Amino acid sequence: MSANKINPDLQRERDNCTFNVTELTNLLDGGPQKTEERKQREDVVLKEGIHTEPVPAIYLSHKDKYELAVKKSCALFQMIRRLQEEENAGMENYQALLGGTLGTAIFGDGNPLALHYVMFIPTIMGQGTVEQQAYWIGRAFNLSIIGTYAQTELGHGTFIRGLETTATYDPRTKEFVLHSPTLTAYKWWPGGLAHTANYCVVMAQLYTQGKCHGIHPFIVQLRDEETHMPLPGIKVGEIGAKLGMNGTNNGFLGLENVRIPRDHMLMKNSQVLEDGTYVKAPSSKLAYGTMMFVRVMLVNDMCNYMAKAVTIATRYSAIRRQSQPKPDEPEPQILDYVTQQHKLLVGIAAVHAFKLNADWIWNMYNNVTAELESGDLERLPELHALSCCLKAVVTADAAECVERCRLACGGHGYMLSSNLPLTYGLVTAACTYEGENTVLLLQTARYLVKAWQQAAAGGGAPPTLQHVAPAPRRNPPWENSVRGIVDGFHTVAAGKIGLCVAQIEKRQKSGMSYEDAWNMTSIQLASASEAHCRAIILATYLKETEQLVKGVSAELRLVLLQLVDLYVLYWALQRIGDLLRFTSISERDIEQLQSWYELTLSKLRRNAVGLVDAFDIRDEILNSTLGAYDGNAYERLMAEAMKSPLNAAPVNDSFHKYLKPFMQGKL
Amino acid sequence: MSANKINPDLQRERDNCTFNVTELTNLLDGGPQKTEERKQREDVVLKEGIHTEPVPAIYLSHKDKYELAVKKSCALFQMIRRLQEEENAGMENYQALLGGTLGTAIFGDGNPLALHYVMFIPTIMGQGTVEQQAYWIGRAFNLSIIGTYAQTELGHGTFIRGLETTATYDPRTKEFVLHSPTLTAYKWWPGGLAHTANYCVVMAQLYTQGKCHGIHPFIVQLRDEETHMPLPGIKVGEIGAKLGMNGTNNGFLGLENVRIPRDHMLMKNSQVLEDGTYVKAPSSKLAYGTMMFVRVMLVNDMCNYMAKAVTIATRYSAIRRQSQPKPDEPEPQILDYVTQQHKLLVGIAAVHAFKLNADWIWNMYNNVTAELESGDLERLPELHALSCCLKAVVTADAAECVERCRLACGGHGYMLSSNLPLTYGLVTAACTYEGENTVLLLQTARYLVKAWQQAAAGGGAPPTLQHVAPAPRRNPPWENSVRGIVDGFHTVAAGKIGLCVAQIEKRQKSGMSYEDAWNMTSIQLASASEAHCRAIILATYLKETEQLVKGVSAELRLVLLQLVDLYVLYWALQRIGDLLRFTSISERDIEQLQSWYELTLSKLRRNAVGLVDAFDIRDEILNSTLGAYDGNAYERLMAEAMKSPLNAAPVNDSFHKYLKPFMQGKL
Repeated sequence: MSANKINPDLQRERDNCTFNVTELTNLLDGGPQKTEERKQREDVVLKEGIHTEPVPAIYLSHKDKYELAVKKSCALFQMIRRLQEEENAGMENYQALLGGTLGTAIFGDGNPLALHYVMFIPTIMGQGTVEQQAYWIGRAFNLSIIGTYAQTELGHGTFIRGLETTATYDPRTKEFVLHSPTLTAYKWWPGGLAHTANYCVVMAQLYTQGKCHGIHPFIVQLRDEETHMPLPGIKVGEIGAKLGMNGTNNGFLGLENVRIPRDHMLMKNSQVLEDGTYVKAPSSKLAYGTMMFVRVMLVNDMCNYMAKAVTIATRYSAIRRQSQPKPDEPEPQILDYVTQQHKLLVGIAAVHAFKLNADWIWNMYNNVTAELESGDLERLPELHALSCCLKAVVTADAAECVERCRLACGGHGYMLSSNLPLTYGLVTAACTYEGENTVLLLQTARYLVKAWQQAAAGGGAPPTLQHVAPAPRRNPPWENSVRGIVDGFHTVAAGKIGLCVAQIEKRQKSGMSYEDAWNMTSIQLASASEAHCRAIILATYLKETEQLVKGVSAELRLVLLQLVDLYVLYWALQRIGDLLRFTSISERDIEQLQSWYELTLSKLRRNAVGLVDAFDIRDEILNSTLGAYDGNAYERLMAEAMKSPLNAAPVNDSFHKYLKPFMQGKL
Repeated sequence: MSANKINPDLQRERDNCTFNVTELTNLLDGGPQKTEERKQREDVVLKEGIHTEPVPAIYLSHKDKYELAVKKSCALFQMIRRLQEEENAGMENYQALLGGTLGTAIFGDGNPLALHYVMFIPTIMGQGTVEQQAYWIGRAFNLSIIGTYAQTELGHGTFIRGLETTATYDPRTKEFVLHSPTLTAYKWWPGGLAHTANYCVVMAQLYTQGKCHGIHPFIVQLRDEETHMPLPGIKVGEIGAKLGMNGTNNGFLGLENVRIPRDHMLMKNSQVLEDGTYVKAPSSKLAYGTMMFVRVMLVNDMCNYMAKAVTIATRYSAIRRQSQPKPDEPEPQILDYVTQQHKLLVGIAAVHAFKLNADWIWNMYNNVTAELESGDLERLPELHALSCCLKAVVTADAAECVERCRLACGGHGYMLSSNLPLTYGLVTAACTYEGENTVLLLQTARYLVKAWQQAAAGGGAPPTLQHVAPAPRRNPPWENSVRGIVDGFHTVAAGKIGLCVAQIEKRQKSGMSYEDAWNMTSIQLASASEAHCRAIILATYLKETEQLVKGVSAELRLVLLQLVDLYVLYWALQRIGDLLRFTSISERDIEQLQSWYELTLSKLRRNAVGLVDAFDIRDEILNSTLGAYDGNAYERLMAEAMKSPLNAAPVNDSFHKYLKPFMQGKL
C-alpha cells in the first residue's frame, strides 16, 4: 500500500472538484498563515510518534489501556514543555492538544491529564486569590502536582444544589472538615481522579457557624506526593469501563472527615474568615463563567468530530461500489445514490453551520465577559440561555451526524478501525455531561417564557429574541426562499413559545400549580426551546456566510452558498409540520422545496470529496481505515485486521483447551 | 447489599400498580404454562453459573474476550447436549439460548458458535439433498465439525449478485475450484470464521462449461480436524475489534484455488451433473426463504433488547431523584418529569407493538411458506416487501429506543455496567446486517410503486396494501381518535406513494431514464416505504390488541389500551407534517392530540414500573447495575466498579514507571 497510489475513483472526484480546496482550508483555519501554523504544529507533534501504538489500544485490556494513556500523556506533555522552552510559545500548543483534533489523534479514547489542564488549573486561576494562585499555579504548571476537579456525585449531576459533600469549618483548628455523609455523596466521574491525580478541587456544601452557604471549591490532597498512596480518610478508585473515553481514568472519591487548612478554600469570590465569619461574593452569577466557557468550547469540539466523521464516510462512499441499477453499467459509487448524498452532505453543511455559530457565540461570550468585568450583568442571562440550548442542540445533532455517517458505511462502519465508533463515543458523552440536554433545553425555555411575558407586558426583547414577542398569529405571505425559510423558523419559534405560555396559563387556571403546569407542558417547552435554537443557528449561518463569501473566489462562493441552501432546505423539510402549523406555507411550496433540495444535492455531489478534503484532517489524525486520503480502504481494513493479536497465531490456544475436548465429547 | 432489601421508591411504585403484573407476564409469554417453562429453563441454565465471570469480560483484552467466549460456548452447548439427553427435549433449548435473552445473558457480547447453529446447519437442511443432509447434519449436530456461513465479502454486502468469489467446475477431476480473484473477494464478517469453525458454507459464483450461473452454496473445509491448522490455499483470520459483538469471532477468508469434491455443492435446488451440465432450480424465489425467516426473527429479537433497555431506564428513573422544582419538597423521582415519561413510556408501548407485529408476520410467514410448498408463489412478493420494511423500521426504532433509554439515565447510562451500551451495540448492528436498512426500504418501495401502477391499471391490491390505490386525494373529515389516526396513516402512505409515482413520471417526461428518475426520487421513496410500514405497524398493534384484551381482566385491559393510545398519539405527533399534508387534520385537532398525549403519559406514569416488571427479565439476564429488581443502583455501581482490575491495587504501576519520573522532570 504505497502512500502515493490514490484510488482512481477518489482521484477522479478530486479532478472534478470545481473550487480550490486550499482556499477553503485557509478560510476555515482563519487565513493561510493559520493553516501554515496548524500544519507545522501537526508536523512537530506527529513526528515524535507518540500517537503510534505497537499493538492498537483497541485490543488491550482496560488496565493496559490506562497504562498506555499515562505513558502517552507523560511523553506528550514532556514534549510540550520542551516546545514551550524552545519556542517561547504561548498557550497554543496546550489548546491544540487538549481541545483540538490533534489531541484525540494521540489519545484516541481520552487523556488522564486532561482535567489537570482544562479544569484544575483554570479553577484555581478563576476562583483563587492572588496568593492562592501564586502558591498553586506554578506547582501545577510544572507538574509537581497533578490535579482534577470533582463536582458530580454518584447521586447528583446536573442539579448542583443537590450535592451532598460537606465542608464544615472548625474555627478551633482553622480547618475545613470535608466529608461524604452517604454513598450517593461520593464524587463520581472526574477524569484522572482514579489513579492519576494527587490533588483535587472538591466542590462541597460549605458549613460555618452552623449555617450552610452552598457549594464552594476546596483543594484537597488525595495522595502522598512521594508514594502516591491515598491519604487517610480518602477513598479513591476508578468507576469502571465505559462506552468510550476509557483512557480518562474517571474516578470516585469518598471523604471521611478529611481536614484541610482554611486557605485551601478558593476564596477569590466568597470567603470564610479565621473566626468562621462567611463573607459572600459580590455576585453569585460570576460562577456561571466557567460553565458557559466550557459549553461554548464544546460547540467547536463537536465541529471537529463531525468533520472527521463526514470525511471518513464521504471518501468511503466515493470508493465503495454497490448494486447495478442499470443492467449494462458497472456498479455505481455509493456516493451516486441520492439517499447516500442525503446522509452525508447535510453533515458537511452542518460543520460549516456550527463553526460559524461557534465563532459567533465565542465573540458574544468575550463581549459579555468584558461587560461583566466592568460590572454590567445585563446580557448574562441571554448568553446563558443561548449557551444552554446551543450546547444541547449541537451535541445532539453531532451525535446523530456521526452515527448516520457510521451507518452510511454499512457493516464496515461497525469496525473500530473505521474510527467512527470511537468518535461516536466521544460525541455522545457530551449529550449528558456539562448539563444534560433536556435539562438545558428547559433552562432556555424558562428564559424564553420570561422574555415572552416581559414583552407581553410591554418590555422590549434582547437582540437574539426579536422574534419572541406575543402578537396575533402572524401569517405573512410565505416566501419560498432561503431567507423566507429562516424567517419561517423564527415564526415557528415564536408560535411555539406563545402556545406554551398559553398552555401553562390554561393549566394554572384549571387549578394546577405553576410548577405542575410547567412540568405538564415540558415536552412542548423543550420543543419550543429547540425551535428557538434552530432559528438562531439557521439565521447565523446564513448571515455569517453572506459576510464571509464577500472575500472569496466566485467558484467557492457558489459552493458555500449551495451548502447554506442545502442546510436550510434540509431543516425546512425536517420541520414541515411546524411550518405548516405556524406559517402560510402551502403544499405546492413544499413540493418545490423537496425538488430544490434534491437538485441542490446533485449540484453538490461532485464537490463532496473536495469539501471534506478542505477540512484537511491528516491521516494520522483521522486514524481511519475507511477514510484515509488515498482511499485504499480495503487494503487498510486488511492491514489493520492483521494487527489483532488473535491473528498472531494460526491456531488459538482455546482450540486445544476447550474446543477440541468439547468436540470429542471429553469436556 | 441484600437481595431482599428493595429500594423504598421502587417498592412504592409496585404498591401503586393498578394491574396484576403476573397476568401481563403470562399474556406476553403466551400463557401461564409458557411462563413456567421459561422460568424453569432459566433456572436450569443459570444455576450452572456459566454466565458468571471472575473478572467481568468488559475489562479483558480482545484476545481474552474471545477465549472466554469459547470456554462459555463449549460449557453451554455441552450442557444443552446433556439436557437434551436427560429431557429428550425438542429444539426449545437451542432456540432459547441462540435467539432469546437467555443467550445474550450468558455471552453478553456474542457467541462464536452461533452461526454453526443459526446458519450452517439450517443451510444444509434447506439446501442440501437428502444424502447431503444425512452425511453432514449428524456430524454437525454432535459437533464433530463446527461450521459457519460465508456470504458477505470485503467489497460486497447487501448486493449479492456482485459477489466475486468463484466456484469453477472441473469435469476432469469432478471437483469445484474455489477462488478469491481479488482482495475485495475475500469473505469478511462471518461469525466463528476466524478461529472457531473448521468447515464453512461458502457462497460463490458458479462457473461450469464456461458459463456463470450465479451464486450457489458450497461446503469448504477450512482447517484440519485434528490440528485445527488452516488447510493449503485457505487464508483465514479475524477481522478485528468492533463496536460490539466482540465474542463472535468474525473472520475473513481468502481462497486460493481450493479444490472440493463435486458433492460438496449443496444441490437440493440447482445441480451440476458429473459432466458439468447445469440443472436449474425450479424457482429462484425459493432462496428468499432463509433471508425472510431471519428478518422475521429479528423483529422478535429487537423486542427483547428494547424490553431490557426500558426495564433498566424505567427502574432507574424511579430511584433517581433530581432537582427541586418546588422549594419545600424533596427532589422528585426523575420518572415524575413528563419529559422523562415521554422518553420511556413510548419505548414500553413499542415493545408491545412490535411483539404483536412480530407474531402477526410470523403467522403470515408460516402461511406463505405452506403455500410455497404447494407451489403457490402468489403472496411471496407481498411477504418479501413487508419483511424488508418491517426489518428496517423495527431495527432503526429499536436502536433509537435503546439509545434514548441510555441517555435518559444521564451519565450513568454511559457506564458499561448499566448494560445499555452493550445492548445498543447488539441492536445497531442489525441496522446494517441482513440487508442495509435504506436498501431494504427501497426494495419495499419498488413493490409499492408496482402495486400502485397495477391498481391504477385496474388491478386489485393485496390485503396489506388496500390503502395503496390511486384516487383523487381523499380528504374525508378528520376523526380525532386512535382509529382516525390509524386511518390517517394509511392515507399518508397512499399520498406519499402517489406523489413518488407522479414525481418519477414527471422526471421521465423531462428526459431522465427510469433509473435516474427513481434515484432522484429515492429520498421520497424511502420515506413512502417507511410511512407504509408505520401504517401497518399501528393498524396491526391496534387490531391485535383489541383481540387480545377480550380475554384479560378489566384492570389490565385499561392499561393495554392506554399503551395503544400512547403509541398511536406519539406517532401522530411525530408525523404532524405528513398528517397536515395528506389529511384534513386541523390545528385545533393537533393541540387536542398533544394534550391527550400528555394526559395519557400521566395516566400510565403510576404503572410504568409494573409494566417493565411484567417483562420479567431476571437480574442475571438484565445484567445491569441501574436496572436490577431491587433498585439498589448506587450500591451496585460501586460494587461493579470495585471489580475493575485497576482497583485491585491502590497505586498503579504506571505511577512509578511514567508519572513520577515525569513529575520530577526525569523522564
